[in-house]
Amino acid sequence: MSEAKPPPSVPPPARERLLEAAVRLIRVKGFSATTVEELCAAAGVSKGAFFHHFQDKDALGVAAADHWSLTTGAFFAAAPYHAPADPLERVLAYLDFRRALITGEVAEFTCLVGTMLQDVHETSPAIREACEASLTGHAATLEADIGAAMAQHGVGGDWTASSLALHTQAVLQGAFVLAKARGGPQAAIESVDHLRRYVELLFRHPTADSPHP
Amino acid sequence: MSEAKPPPSVPPPARERLLEAAVRLIRVKGFSATTVEELCAAAGVSKGAFFHHFQDKDALGVAAADHWSLTTGAFFAAAPYHAPADPLERVLAYLDFRRALITGEVAEFTCLVGTMLQDVHETSPAIREACEASLTGHAATLEADIGAAMAQHGVGGDWTASSLALHTQAVLQGAFVLAKARGGPQAAIESVDHLRRYVELLFRHPTADSPHP
Repeated sequence: MSEAKPPPSVPPPARERLLEAAVRLIRVKGFSATTVEELCAAAGVSKGAFFHHFQDKDALGVAAADHWSLTTGAFFAAAPYHAPADPLERVLAYLDFRRALITGEVAEFTCLVGTMLQDVHETSPAIREACEASLTGHAATLEADIGAAMAQHGVGGDWTASSLALHTQAVLQGAFVLAKARGGPQAAIESVDHLRRYVELLFRHPTADSPHP
Repeated sequence: MSEAKPPPSVPPPARERLLEAAVRLIRVKGFSATTVEELCAAAGVSKGAFFHHFQDKDALGVAAADHWSLTTGAFFAAAPYHAPADPLERVLAYLDFRRALITGEVAEFTCLVGTMLQDVHETSPAIREACEASLTGHAATLEADIGAAMAQHGVGGDWTASSLALHTQAVLQGAFVLAKARGGPQAAIESVDHLRRYVELLFRHPTADSPHP
């Protein structure tokens, strides 16, 4: 797995090219249907190089989920939705940001780990765990803002910041399933609109069991 | 595809057994990883019988989605959530019914067509269409109740009965992805709880742009 750092002008190393190919191909056809041969062809590497970097296809699947966590993690960390001073505005800005990403080809805006989970959840515990860590890890980045918004707006009750953060990911994943069904983004966008409306209603109309009704 | 109706005491015909095997196996490992050989073994039929009933594996996928639409359609049509006189209560009872179904093994409560969509949405238009018809068809069974609830409770605005019906399916599909990530039902159940809370908030706190605020 050790690899000398390349000089700045050379193309990405084989391992990186294989991971990027995995992200592209798996979002189009799923993990099971994506073969090692296709990954090598798309990455422009030999099978020998593949098995130098990955013990088997499952190891590539785990590394692809980890790669997804790292690249999307950096992308969301640098996104502008963190700017508003009000934590509720940050949560709503996150949803607006996610909504704006749902555009173009379905395989380009859908989620690698949500796609992989569908066909490996029973058959590859290692990939399932890497996908779970990716989903849960991203949800956790929303928890602090949701918790701060709950405190600031005096909202709470029979749900937690953690469960609402996970729910946002459920809606996004389900929206991607709708997009795959419809072959386009519109129904997915409307689902994110419903989610945004829910968050607004939750914080504007605290329920009877809220600590500060 | 024509098949003489069997006398009551014989086991289900080969086609039916293959479709039931497809529902079981695809929910565990996805469509791509499920082979014709495995389907035949699980159904106890020969490969000759398989290709007598289905031209290829894609044809089996289309038939499995249609079979899923028929069997789940009959199941939901006969379910008790249609009983309440108030249409809003019927919608909430539907969500309670769906919540109660999220129990046991992940592959037993998750959705065949949502699972198939993940790995065939680009590669098999015929299966994608059959899955889309199943998802949209089920959502449509909720539209009349949602529409009647909107009229009765004077609720409306920038969303339609159709979009809320589709959103309920997005949340359920996303909840199933969470369940696959977690290897269990709890996070999925909490997502359905969030969806129920959203529907209650929508109908109890009509937004400013409602026809009857």
